[in-house]
Amino acid sequence: MAKEKKFVQAITSRDEDFAQWYTDVVREAKLCDYSSVKGCLNYLPNGYAIWEKIQADLDKRFKETGVENVYLPMLIPENLLQKESDHIEGFAPEVAWVTKGGLETLQEPMCIRPTSETLFCDLWARTVQSYRDLPKVWNQWCSVLRWEKTTRPFLRSREFLWQEGHTIHATYEEAEQRTLTMLRVYQELIRDSLAIPFVSGPKTESEKFAGAQDTYTVEALMHDGKALQSATSHFFGNAFPDAFDIKYLDKNNELHSVYETSWGLSTRIIGALIMVHGDDSGLVLPPRIAPVQTRVIPIAQHKEGVLEKANELTERLKKAGYSVKIDDSEKSPGWKFSEQEMLGIPTRIEIGPKDIEQNQVVVVRRDTREKIVVSLDEIETKLGEILETIQKDMYDRAKAFLDSHIDFAETMDEMNEKFNTKRGFIKAKWCGSAECEDEIKAATGGATTRCICKEDQVKDGDTCIFCGKQAKHVVYFGKAY
Amino acid sequence: MAKEKKFVQAITSRDEDFAQWYTDVVREAKLCDYSSVKGCLNYLPNGYAIWEKIQADLDKRFKETGVENVYLPMLIPENLLQKESDHIEGFAPEVAWVTKGGLETLQEPMCIRPTSETLFCDLWARTVQSYRDLPKVWNQWCSVLRWEKTTRPFLRSREFLWQEGHTIHATYEEAEQRTLTMLRVYQELIRDSLAIPFVSGPKTESEKFAGAQDTYTVEALMHDGKALQSATSHFFGNAFPDAFDIKYLDKNNELHSVYETSWGLSTRIIGALIMVHGDDSGLVLPPRIAPVQTRVIPIAQHKEGVLEKANELTERLKKAGYSVKIDDSEKSPGWKFSEQEMLGIPTRIEIGPKDIEQNQVVVVRRDTREKIVVSLDEIETKLGEILETIQKDMYDRAKAFLDSHIDFAETMDEMNEKFNTKRGFIKAKWCGSAECEDEIKAATGGATTRCICKEDQVKDGDTCIFCGKQAKHVVYFGKAY
Repeated sequence: MAKEKKFVQAITSRDEDFAQWYTDVVREAKLCDYSSVKGCLNYLPNGYAIWEKIQADLDKRFKETGVENVYLPMLIPENLLQKESDHIEGFAPEVAWVTKGGLETLQEPMCIRPTSETLFCDLWARTVQSYRDLPKVWNQWCSVLRWEKTTRPFLRSREFLWQEGHTIHATYEEAEQRTLTMLRVYQELIRDSLAIPFVSGPKTESEKFAGAQDTYTVEALMHDGKALQSATSHFFGNAFPDAFDIKYLDKNNELHSVYETSWGLSTRIIGALIMVHGDDSGLVLPPRIAPVQTRVIPIAQHKEGVLEKANELTERLKKAGYSVKIDDSEKSPGWKFSEQEMLGIPTRIEIGPKDIEQNQVVVVRRDTREKIVVSLDEIETKLGEILETIQKDMYDRAKAFLDSHIDFAETMDEMNEKFNTKRGFIKAKWCGSAECEDEIKAATGGATTRCICKEDQVKDGDTCIFCGKQAKHVVYFGKAY
Repeated sequence: MAKEKKFVQAITSRDEDFAQWYTDVVREAKLCDYSSVKGCLNYLPNGYAIWEKIQADLDKRFKETGVENVYLPMLIPENLLQKESDHIEGFAPEVAWVTKGGLETLQEPMCIRPTSETLFCDLWARTVQSYRDLPKVWNQWCSVLRWEKTTRPFLRSREFLWQEGHTIHATYEEAEQRTLTMLRVYQELIRDSLAIPFVSGPKTESEKFAGAQDTYTVEALMHDGKALQSATSHFFGNAFPDAFDIKYLDKNNELHSVYETSWGLSTRIIGALIMVHGDDSGLVLPPRIAPVQTRVIPIAQHKEGVLEKANELTERLKKAGYSVKIDDSEKSPGWKFSEQEMLGIPTRIEIGPKDIEQNQVVVVRRDTREKIVVSLDEIETKLGEILETIQKDMYDRAKAFLDSHIDFAETMDEMNEKFNTKRGFIKAKWCGSAECEDEIKAATGGATTRCICKEDQVKDGDTCIFCGKQAKHVVYFGKAY
């Protein structure tokens, strides 16, 4: 019975050792595991199914805004990567190089893409000529590789899955608008489908993407009070495309620069799902993104008619459009409950001889463990309502947690104390200099600027929390994953 | 107006120069283009959208048979690739090697996956222990890399997109059954959704996948009479998993080998779609796989009410579940027709002042150019019927072509003559030796065994077309892409 024990055995308590709890959940829910390829992960069926749901949801949102999907090569010749100086400086130390192909040594090494701005720009430089060729609003779903030193499931690995959108436009304004549109799309996915609240805004100069003019970020708060950068949208202006000499002729036959954006979201977001919603029984998935929404668990299934009725119920729910699985294995109901909880399936439906007698089932919510008796006649509509309530409640709980972890510091003493007791986001006035960011990070033991807070404006006379000079922005500080 | 000319300009005639016609269609329909990364392709929106439709269709079929999706690393350490000797022999000459990661030189080079049997086996060797862990029926959608010397859009490139399924089972029979189930799934996709007929069967020893015990193939016939291997399903027996030491304990605690399969279909299949159905006006896509099923083209759109009515029709069709786009650009109707034809959109709907007056539209079939007048009141149902008819007719035409290109040769003279006049599949009796395969290939200038014909059995006394010894099989010969 060694196998049975796995799920009923308690995992590490979340509040006791958050890092160990995270590792336990990932392992016990069989989401992914360490590959024998150093620094890389195997995405197992339970983990990959979540990514597929996120992909389908986000891809639909993309297409509604006019995005088209493409696929460009995974290899980038050295000379292409070097065309934009900030970009190569940012990425060169962390790429993997292919130096041999088949039996020949390559004349020019190629790196495995860490991101594909250079390839998109190279393609557009060869194919975009006229205003009629603009805009290009393209995206690709792929994996990228960055030679990281440490690995944590979903959060950091050498190879990871993501989407990278790349666009070029005839005008500055249109490109800027696209940057913000994609930021909004990410916000909507993360809030409405993943039930994850966040703070959001532009990055400071030192936290921007290599080569970008502006980087906008969505920063979610994990249950341990640390921040996770969950999606970013970059505005490049025309510097990057100019480096690749992408120009177009307008209606009057005049030559112009194009303006570029890029934006991405990766499998990191699965880490956020775990760390925002998970509890001591395992994963808790929001219904809109859960690969399975309910698991039917027969009680006393050896008794006559139980399995038959449970199967009938499963079929009815499938027909009604739910993603539903039955657990008719030989395991005990208690074991089945534990497994369903570990996997984060939003509801289970218990159905036993007494329920059948009374023409009812018991729906149990994963998030609150509340048991709801539902008449079998109404299960199709009631289940939908329960799932919607779970979705809403999960967001509300996470939002309350976030709100109670946003604070304000007027002095470094205050910053230090708040940052080192309960973490969270700490707003502070800041002069805009990278030196002060460095000093604050050193003084607090790790508080970095997560993003600029656009809601709070500074006035004349407001001073930087560190240097005391005129403040430029209110920024969110936090400890980043 | 140079841009307008592109589509009305005739492409190379299919029957005059098939290879050039193919290249013209790929370019003019903007499906993909040569990347500046040597040997690699850029999959452009029109081409990638076809792949997305194939993915969605095939993925659904996979899941109905119990397949789960996963994702394993793109890199394979050298020692892993070498574990199975036939496999390394088959792939070593054509892989790309990563020798440097970040700033360090790797102690062990890693290749970019040419296929992932070795990684799946490595993972299972570490995680499969008991009969309760079996079967594993996994698949991944990804790209792979093989260091090819020549490149042809979709047909041959260093990096290409595909899915690779990998499974292990407790018994020989179950694994063999899975191999055949996946062959059937491919056959159904290719026949029912892509409207492509084929011959199908096991490969001969010399044409099998590196390391496999049996390889089953689906071989489609292109319009130039050449064969295209469109999907393969491999049965490995237990030799491959034994090389990785994957063993499981049965209910009686006895240790056993597992049995393995793998199966794949790639973006090559888009090449088949083009070369089976395309004509002198461009691509012809079967309705079930076409990213856009109909294009609404307003006639005399400057006239009052035309655009309004065309938009209304577009919305109605969208609501009815069709994939529909309107072309309300400033181009002439003739140009719009040419473009819709080049892109292979299965139908267009012409709507002008006269049509509106008579409460009708004209539906034009891409495959036959037949014009069908449909009352506006009935368009939602009629369009569906027309699309289904197109789907069926496209298959039937391709099937008639295939049937008229399957022949039988009793002697090498006959083989030579038939093979070198109209190509196609030529059935012949064969002794089973690789030497005879080589000799036949040399004698005919390129006829290779495409697969064994399971429908035709040889009798005692039947002789090999080349050596005259007892025949073992009837095989399909053909010229392969």
